[in-house]
Formats: sequence, C-alpha cells, structure tokens
Amino acid sequence: MRADAAVNREAIIGAAIELLADVGLSVSTRQVAAAAGVGIGTLYRHFPTRTDLLHGVGTCLRERVDALAARFDERATEDIEAAWLAFGHEFVGLRLGRLIAQAAAFPDFFLDDAAVVERRAEAAGAIAARLDVAKRAGLVREDVDAFHFVLGASQISRPLGAAVDGLVPGWNEWLVDVYLRGLRP
Amino acid sequence: MRADAAVNREAIIGAAIELLADVGLSVSTRQVAAAAGVGIGTLYRHFPTRTDLLHGVGTCLRERVDALAARFDERATEDIEAAWLAFGHEFVGLRLGRLIAQAAAFPDFFLDDAAVVERRAEAAGAIAARLDVAKRAGLVREDVDAFHFVLGASQISRPLGAAVDGLVPGWNEWLVDVYLRGLRP
Repeated sequence: MRADAAVNREAIIGAAIELLADVGLSVSTRQVAAAAGVGIGTLYRHFPTRTDLLHGVGTCLRERVDALAARFDERATEDIEAAWLAFGHEFVGLRLGRLIAQAAAFPDFFLDDAAVVERRAEAAGAIAARLDVAKRAGLVREDVDAFHFVLGASQISRPLGAAVDGLVPGWNEWLVDVYLRGLRP
Repeated sequence: MRADAAVNREAIIGAAIELLADVGLSVSTRQVAAAAGVGIGTLYRHFPTRTDLLHGVGTCLRERVDALAARFDERATEDIEAAWLAFGHEFVGLRLGRLIAQAAAFPDFFLDDAAVVERRAEAAGAIAARLDVAKRAGLVREDVDAFHFVLGASQISRPLGAAVDGLVPGWNEWLVDVYLRGLRP
C-alpha cells in the first residue's frame, strides 16, 4: 500500500472507532468518511462495504491487543510485575468499553458473526497466555479468565465525562490500580 | 401526601431516573410523564419545573444512599465484613454510572448547582463515615475516599448489554467482587 493510502486507511479506521463508540453500529460510511477527512470514494476503495469497514476496525483492535501482548512478552523477561501492571493499564487504555456496549446491541453481529467470533477467540487466546504468565508469577488469581479480564478492563475504561475528571482528578487511573490489585491472589 | 399521589410521585421519579440515564438531562417532562403513565398535569403538580424534577431525582438518590448506609450500620454490629461486602454490592446496584455520565455533560448543573453540590457533600459525608468503619476493620485502605469509592462503584455498574451478560454470565457481580478486593489494604 502506498504511504498516503496507508495514512487514509488509518484515518478511516480511527474515525470509525470513534464514531462506532459514540453513535454505534448504525453509523454510516458517509459519516465516517467525513470525520476521517476523506472522500466517500476513498473510503469505498479501502472498504467496499460497511461490513468490510466493521471488520477492518475489528482487525485493527486485534492488532492493538497483539502489540500490547508483544510488549508484555518483552518486558516480562526483565520485570514481570512491572510488565503486568503496564499491560493492564495499556489494555484499559484501549478503551474498548464503549465499543463493546455498542456492538453488543447488535447480537447478530456481536455473538454470531463468524469473523467476530473467530477474532474474539484468537484475542482471548493471546490474553489467556499472558494471564498464565502473570498467574505463575503470583500476580493474578487462578480463576481469572481472559473474557472476565477483558470485560473488567473494558468496563472501567468508559469515560464518565470531563466534569467528573475535573472533580476527582486521576480517578480513572486509580480505578485501574484497584482493579489490578483486586485480581491478585 | 395521599397514597395514590405518593404512588404517582414514585412512578414519575422512577421514569425520570431511567430516562435521564438513557437520554440525558435534555429529557422532556412530557417524555417522563408518558413513561410514568401519568398526565402532564399530574407531573407538574408534583414538580412544577424541570429543575424541581431533577432535584426530586437527586433527593431520591440521596435517600437510597442513606437507606444503604442505615442497613450497613445495622449489619455492621453483627458481621462487619459481610456488612461491608453487602454495602459495596448494593451501592453498585444503585447503578449511578449512567446518570453521572449524563449529568456530567452539563457542568453548570453537575459542578455548580448549589443544591447538587450540597447533596453531593452530604452523601460523601455519609459514605465517608461508613468507609471509616470499614477501614478500622481492615477492609478498606486508608487512602480510599468517598468520591473515589463512589466513582469506582458507579463506573462498574454501567450496563454493557444483554449480549455481553449472555456471553459471560455473572461478569458484573464478579467485577464488583474484584473491585471490593482491590480496595483492601
């Protein structure tokens, strides 16, 4: 892919993630193109259908999880506790909660779409492998599985609004620490 | 208040809480009256202005917090740990997260309205007193204050949708337990 095409693709996916989180799966490709600052024709060259765009977003999120997992593997050889805490904070930082809430409103897609089911199983496997490392290091209870970890981390990532952040600065990072502490044996 | 008037008032406040959580502070009194199954005239007899209705909701939530606190006080004399866990689960069960997120979108109301500020301070005092009891019993870390506790408990109460609950049954109660465990010293 040429460099400008890659930039456009990234802008489209970034805009799609924001709009899917705010508006939901009913968002139009036209809205996404406008938010990404590209023409609708450019969007269709990258993602011929709305479903292609949704799966483009899913693949991008899957890659982000893989990137966090790779960084965890690197760091874990040095300092497993620091690596696990960083992984937890970075995973919450993916801010998947709003997206999950929106996607879950469309069970045909969320529960039954074959590509979604496959990506979810792959991501769960990647996360379970890192949970196992953290469990062996005594940082996570045995009974914590990947789905629970992801839902907990995604739930606490949902924004409550700037007014809340101003009233109680840092509350969200505090909650991530409480969450990770609560996962310990 | 006559019995049927009290029933109407309760229905109006219940409908207002649901609609405020779903639609936000822009919800109309007409929508609330329809959802409560009362005429608009009945609503206006109880709450002459939209602001009166918002404060009616606030007072109702304040009373619910007081009721939880009173139950905690009763139970704490018997079994402080059970009382604290029940208080945590019941507080999350108030499901304040969606309401806080909606209210925070109106900082003039959320941050600056005198009645809101006063109710928030009163509720924080009531919660801080129970946190102190839990701290003395070694169930909560010293540095946990009422605002952090409330935001954490409210955040984890936000629904992710029936499809998620079906996919990972009981994940929300699991998260409450993780949260309460994470607050321990």
